[in-house]
Amino acid sequence: MLNKHVYTFLGCDKDYSEAKTVIFGAPFDSTTSNRPGARFASSAMRAESGGLETYSPYQDADLCDAAVFDGGDLELCFGDTTAALGQIEQFCTLILTDGKLPVMIGGEHLVTLGALRAAVRKYPDLHIVHFDAHADLRDDYLGASLSHATVLRRAWELVGDGRIWQFGIRSGDRPEFDWGAGHVSTQKFDFTGLEKTAAALTGKPVYFTLDLDVLDPSIFPGTGTPEAGGVSFLQLLSAMLSLKGLNIVGCDMSELSPAYDHSGVSTAVACKVLRELLIMLS
Amino acid sequence: MLNKHVYTFLGCDKDYSEAKTVIFGAPFDSTTSNRPGARFASSAMRAESGGLETYSPYQDADLCDAAVFDGGDLELCFGDTTAALGQIEQFCTLILTDGKLPVMIGGEHLVTLGALRAAVRKYPDLHIVHFDAHADLRDDYLGASLSHATVLRRAWELVGDGRIWQFGIRSGDRPEFDWGAGHVSTQKFDFTGLEKTAAALTGKPVYFTLDLDVLDPSIFPGTGTPEAGGVSFLQLLSAMLSLKGLNIVGCDMSELSPAYDHSGVSTAVACKVLRELLIMLS
Amino acid sequence: MLNKHVYTFLGCDKDYSEAKTVIFGAPFDSTTSNRPGARFASSAMRAESGGLETYSPYQDADLCDAAVFDGGDLELCFGDTTAALGQIEQFCTLILTDGKLPVMIGGEHLVTLGALRAAVRKYPDLHIVHFDAHADLRDDYLGASLSHATVLRRAWELVGDGRIWQFGIRSGDRPEFDWGAGHVSTQKFDFTGLEKTAAALTGKPVYFTLDLDVLDPSIFPGTGTPEAGGVSFLQLLSAMLSLKGLNIVGCDMSELSPAYDHSGVSTAVACKVLRELLIMLS
Amino acid sequence: MLNKHVYTFLGCDKDYSEAKTVIFGAPFDSTTSNRPGARFASSAMRAESGGLETYSPYQDADLCDAAVFDGGDLELCFGDTTAALGQIEQFCTLILTDGKLPVMIGGEHLVTLGALRAAVRKYPDLHIVHFDAHADLRDDYLGASLSHATVLRRAWELVGDGRIWQFGIRSGDRPEFDWGAGHVSTQKFDFTGLEKTAAALTGKPVYFTLDLDVLDPSIFPGTGTPEAGGVSFLQLLSAMLSLKGLNIVGCDMSELSPAYDHSGVSTAVACKVLRELLIMLS
Amino acid sequence: MLNKHVYTFLGCDKDYSEAKTVIFGAPFDSTTSNRPGARFASSAMRAESGGLETYSPYQDADLCDAAVFDGGDLELCFGDTTAALGQIEQFCTLILTDGKLPVMIGGEHLVTLGALRAAVRKYPDLHIVHFDAHADLRDDYLGASLSHATVLRRAWELVGDGRIWQFGIRSGDRPEFDWGAGHVSTQKFDFTGLEKTAAALTGKPVYFTLDLDVLDPSIFPGTGTPEAGGVSFLQLLSAMLSLKGLNIVGCDMSELSPAYDHSGVSTAVACKVLRELLIMLS
Amino acid sequence: MLNKHVYTFLGCDKDYSEAKTVIFGAPFDSTTSNRPGARFASSAMRAESGGLETYSPYQDADLCDAAVFDGGDLELCFGDTTAALGQIEQFCTLILTDGKLPVMIGGEHLVTLGALRAAVRKYPDLHIVHFDAHADLRDDYLGASLSHATVLRRAWELVGDGRIWQFGIRSGDRPEFDWGAGHVSTQKFDFTGLEKTAAALTGKPVYFTLDLDVLDPSIFPGTGTPEAGGVSFLQLLSAMLSLKGLNIVGCDMSELSPAYDHSGVSTAVACKVLRELLIMLS
Repeated sequence: MLNKHVYTFLGCDKDYSEAKTVIFGAPFDSTTSNRPGARFASSAMRAESGGLETYSPYQDADLCDAAVFDGGDLELCFGDTTAALGQIEQFCTLILTDGKLPVMIGGEHLVTLGALRAAVRKYPDLHIVHFDAHADLRDDYLGASLSHATVLRRAWELVGDGRIWQFGIRSGDRPEFDWGAGHVSTQKFDFTGLEKTAAALTGKPVYFTLDLDVLDPSIFPGTGTPEAGGVSFLQLLSAMLSLKGLNIVGCDMSELSPAYDHSGVSTAVACKVLRELLIMLS
Repeated sequence: MLNKHVYTFLGCDKDYSEAKTVIFGAPFDSTTSNRPGARFASSAMRAESGGLETYSPYQDADLCDAAVFDGGDLELCFGDTTAALGQIEQFCTLILTDGKLPVMIGGEHLVTLGALRAAVRKYPDLHIVHFDAHADLRDDYLGASLSHATVLRRAWELVGDGRIWQFGIRSGDRPEFDWGAGHVSTQKFDFTGLEKTAAALTGKPVYFTLDLDVLDPSIFPGTGTPEAGGVSFLQLLSAMLSLKGLNIVGCDMSELSPAYDHSGVSTAVACKVLRELLIMLS
Repeated sequence: MLNKHVYTFLGCDKDYSEAKTVIFGAPFDSTTSNRPGARFASSAMRAESGGLETYSPYQDADLCDAAVFDGGDLELCFGDTTAALGQIEQFCTLILTDGKLPVMIGGEHLVTLGALRAAVRKYPDLHIVHFDAHADLRDDYLGASLSHATVLRRAWELVGDGRIWQFGIRSGDRPEFDWGAGHVSTQKFDFTGLEKTAAALTGKPVYFTLDLDVLDPSIFPGTGTPEAGGVSFLQLLSAMLSLKGLNIVGCDMSELSPAYDHSGVSTAVACKVLRELLIMLS
Repeated sequence: MLNKHVYTFLGCDKDYSEAKTVIFGAPFDSTTSNRPGARFASSAMRAESGGLETYSPYQDADLCDAAVFDGGDLELCFGDTTAALGQIEQFCTLILTDGKLPVMIGGEHLVTLGALRAAVRKYPDLHIVHFDAHADLRDDYLGASLSHATVLRRAWELVGDGRIWQFGIRSGDRPEFDWGAGHVSTQKFDFTGLEKTAAALTGKPVYFTLDLDVLDPSIFPGTGTPEAGGVSFLQLLSAMLSLKGLNIVGCDMSELSPAYDHSGVSTAVACKVLRELLIMLS
Repeated sequence: MLNKHVYTFLGCDKDYSEAKTVIFGAPFDSTTSNRPGARFASSAMRAESGGLETYSPYQDADLCDAAVFDGGDLELCFGDTTAALGQIEQFCTLILTDGKLPVMIGGEHLVTLGALRAAVRKYPDLHIVHFDAHADLRDDYLGASLSHATVLRRAWELVGDGRIWQFGIRSGDRPEFDWGAGHVSTQKFDFTGLEKTAAALTGKPVYFTLDLDVLDPSIFPGTGTPEAGGVSFLQLLSAMLSLKGLNIVGCDMSELSPAYDHSGVSTAVACKVLRELLIMLS
Repeated sequence: MLNKHVYTFLGCDKDYSEAKTVIFGAPFDSTTSNRPGARFASSAMRAESGGLETYSPYQDADLCDAAVFDGGDLELCFGDTTAALGQIEQFCTLILTDGKLPVMIGGEHLVTLGALRAAVRKYPDLHIVHFDAHADLRDDYLGASLSHATVLRRAWELVGDGRIWQFGIRSGDRPEFDWGAGHVSTQKFDFTGLEKTAAALTGKPVYFTLDLDVLDPSIFPGTGTPEAGGVSFLQLLSAMLSLKGLNIVGCDMSELSPAYDHSGVSTAVACKVLRELLIMLS
């Protein structure tokens, strides 16, 4: 008689053993340089997901037919970045070892580094597809090497030149863009070239990291550093669907900050993006 | 000396006897399944309408030249759905009997059913043009046959197959879409085919029901169930204007929920849509 | 490794079998006459409860030492009041039959009626202690006999004269107060006489219903009908603790409406009240 | 069938001819030095008043038994202070000439000056009772002699020494307090001495001006310049009731700014204060 | 060791003597007819600008390389329109006399008049490029000749026929549009024809006045009178960049109202527009 | 002509050389375990302080007569707790070495540790007076020894037994209270005993650390962990003034989180507390 399913993200109520995909929250935002609060994203999304249908008219498929387990939230230590990344890495390793696909909900974008460390150990030839407003290629930020502003630089140290494909980037300092030109592929402002990239990555292990602030702040105001001039929901959806068929071995979305989402629209959008992503992956 | 006109919607200050169009509020939202509060839409719109001009540069016409009476709000009973629909039906019947055009401001979308019952009695060959994010074609919702999620299904019971034309639909469960395919015309996502539909409906009595959540939540966050991927204001305006010249015998707009409209933009948009609609109808 | 306990209210993570107290949500608010949204109270409280300690310095006791099971939320049908009350009654009956204490989190205050029906069947000599800003003694509200404004009148029909003890009442129409004078005990504005009432009720079965709007809106703004002149948190706490030792056989708290609680303070207060209540009951 | 009464403040629906009291809004806030927006107070209060009962358990009396006409809002010119005050003076003169009692809802506190000019012409021996957080005794504010910060100084120019009685004052610059010591009676922080003042004013014509920011910002956050350390609602209510029996010939309340009242509590409090005031005056 | 630069707008920390451009705030909004609060725009923008990069990937240039001095805010008198405009005129004259470019941050749009008076004295053949949602061509507004709704009419009195070029206009009353047709160039809704206008203005002194409500309220909700159907950030950016190379001698942006910008997105957008404008001007 | 003083906290515009007191912001909140955002406190307070008078009617003294320099904000590294505390310690050492009094505006409460390290080096016999809702005596929090929940435990390691005097404490886990009983003096809930403590501390060097959440959330909702049952503004003011005359050698206030202060009241209260504190210290 009790409505247990409200405790998981919409439709993600399979048992761990039968699940092919595992979603979990990584509520950490201690290095956020502007507006913090992404720690509350996963719990806000679970609560809000009840307003969504499980069926996608875009893909003509239903989330209930995917086999997804919602693992809840990791309990991470605020203020101790190294420890938090270690916990994330450990949990992703567990999921990967069990042959399942980890889909992490940040938290700030730095949480990606923990998941990447786990993924690259299993898939040394890992490629990274990165949607974001910000390049995140700084070598350090106010002296810190572990920061949401440096996460792709740290990622590059794991995978090396030519393995990172950025799209939608519309913010960074000049040195980031200059450094990036020699080491990663950066598409400014939009998704031009994504289909070609997808074709080139066919068969290779791919980690897909989605900083939700790639969306325009008109539709996604609830984020730490809103950056005008972003893509629409339909552009993002279309871009995600063009990754269908790739060998995606890990995934995350980050930077929803519910405290700045007074209307709830950002959270609703994040839920819809996650629904489409989970269906696309299945 | 007193500024009486603030008590009606902008420019809708004609007497009942001389009016051709009657607007009124139907503040009811008891069956809303997600975020309630549409009950406050009409009073919020009246207060906000003072920020708008009566002149439309889109149609080069002025709302003051339309003959519109603002009848205020019905006093509906929360929690007693059947009684509330009865009051709406009774009031619409009165307006129709007097040869005037009813334009109802919801409330949740279920209020449409009361108006439709009145309209279909006078116009048995009624057609329905429906703009919405949601199909609203469920047969019941958690056991209730009267719900904002079933309203078009109940409408179909009144008018029958081939009489309902839906546009902009981007949410529903699979059975709704499957059932709808056999009974109504559903254009997913946008207004493709609307001009052709308008041509086919020429001369026939048409009820136009506008669930404002057909708009993208970037411009219309203040609604019960925001659904990303909607149309822009200019797309909606253009679609509405393509209905000009039809024999529209009843009209409504619904699902503005001011408590989720912190910036006031949703309410301002709803006011502008109503202005354009009233001018278009005159 | 996963932090499962965030899914229940703070510290209420015992198994059903070992629990003495069962908390559950009744997310229903269809008859709310002013600002709806109490349906979201229980889920907001669970999310917010993580900001609280389990230890109470007021009672020098810890919630973890109470044996509380969090049963989650009932899935109630909006717009069908009779059905919703039936579900609540059925679930409370189950808990009472198992010899456990039900503590319900509304929802609007009408949900109390479902629980009372279950309780009075088991305890025909039930007394009701009622903290509220509003008398809730109307016989009908806009024609509806089932309404959050009539709930104590319906309760009186169950238990009869001299069984309802109201405290803190500061709003109602004149007929409510007049009728109440002959049938229930009403303490206006504050808790004067509560200790005497508690003494008189010793040993009798008592249902305690707490409408949180008895609190002053300075500390509890997030409610449907904020009514100035209420009690402070410390006054409420002291009043609740004076019920300690009574034979409380059922309990509820209602009317937190998170959408009007922008600062989160109302929700935090509700959580703290629940913690103290659960510890007091154990 | 239409619910016309929502267009006036709760229960203030008598005709002008039969009314003894006339309430009206003065939506003007152009000289507000901090957070503007008091222009929206009267329309927000009318909309919110539906959440209140007409019956007062404090005075055991009903607002419906008072004879109050709601004259709506004046249409004042923003940015032209002199013109706005002239319109207010003209309208109050009309009300006073008809032998009725004007009760004005600001707007910023400067609107009081327009009403005072009308009142002092009819009652040259006028006394002023003033509840406020701020002394408002500056001679000019940034060069402007007409300002919400100078309104009581301008009032003094109308009535002279010994005629202004201030209570609750907890903000001002040193020269205001120094000047005030020689010309007006100022009770800092609270209502000490009010009963004595009331006794001294028996039989004399009194204008009562209530700046709502005399309330503590915990209960009244929605105001231009919130000032901690204010009085509670019950203290204010008690103070107002101690004026009962005086020959009050004019009245106003000001400085509710709804844009800063996200929870709606300030507006609800203002409505309740107005209800009690209107009942007390009748 | 102290982080002094947070006190100026991002990157605008040159000394006055070496600066080519001077930005300053004009916090005045007393004539705003709808939602006031633009007075807080400049201080909100300075605080928010820390979330932005100084580098523009759109122009491949850095704000730090422009020579901009942030002069802080003028201290203007609310409620005394004439005095406020005088202060603005005086300060702009000072900047122009020193051979620097003034860039003013409103406040309401009326502040433009003060700057224009200074500019037209130095450049009698001044042309005005005007981006706005509203025509602002009324001769008076509720009796006031100085109003944010009349500012371009007053501007026309300074420069005469054929000197004002409006773009994006989507609101006004009929007489404004009719009068405008004979005296100014008005492009409704968008920027069509802007490049041709820019070509025609080559070499002439141009004042560029940007009412930020030309943007669609989806991306710019935080403004006094949000008007649906506006341009996107990228359209505005592109339009601004098409002015590059003109002899711009004065500039302003206005009508950000932070109190209605709960998510902070409007303020962030305004900051980004200002960054791009300052880089474009350098 | 420019209004430079808006850039400092109200009235704190003396030069460093002539100042006796130095205020500065420590915008750090990376270890906040619940709602982050205290990093924005100091800049929000500077912006808001313009709404306050410099004169205190409570102390009959003016902030302009105190000699206070506003040093702006330190630029601290989010996510690197050790580095941030080092910067704070270094800056406080500088101020103390110059014989001035440091008054730090947090940030989260952990920033106090940096200031204490500087103070205890100069004053080895330092005593600490601590107003707070939370005991902050944990030895570690989720594994981190540096946390806002452990700051007083770390402080104890610096000063030893019998040197810390806590007031207003109403939250903590049982071990904190148990441990505290043997090492510090803890007054639960209120300020009972403060005058006696003040008497005992006469002549000794005292550091006063004020966690603003000691205030009740009705008046101070904008904080990370609102805890009902706190003190009123007037109680806090009275308590602070009872410290007058002590040898206070360092001071801080912390835990204002403006993102949760939608009405601005918390920020206004914090400004008033700071004004009274600075006047009391001078």
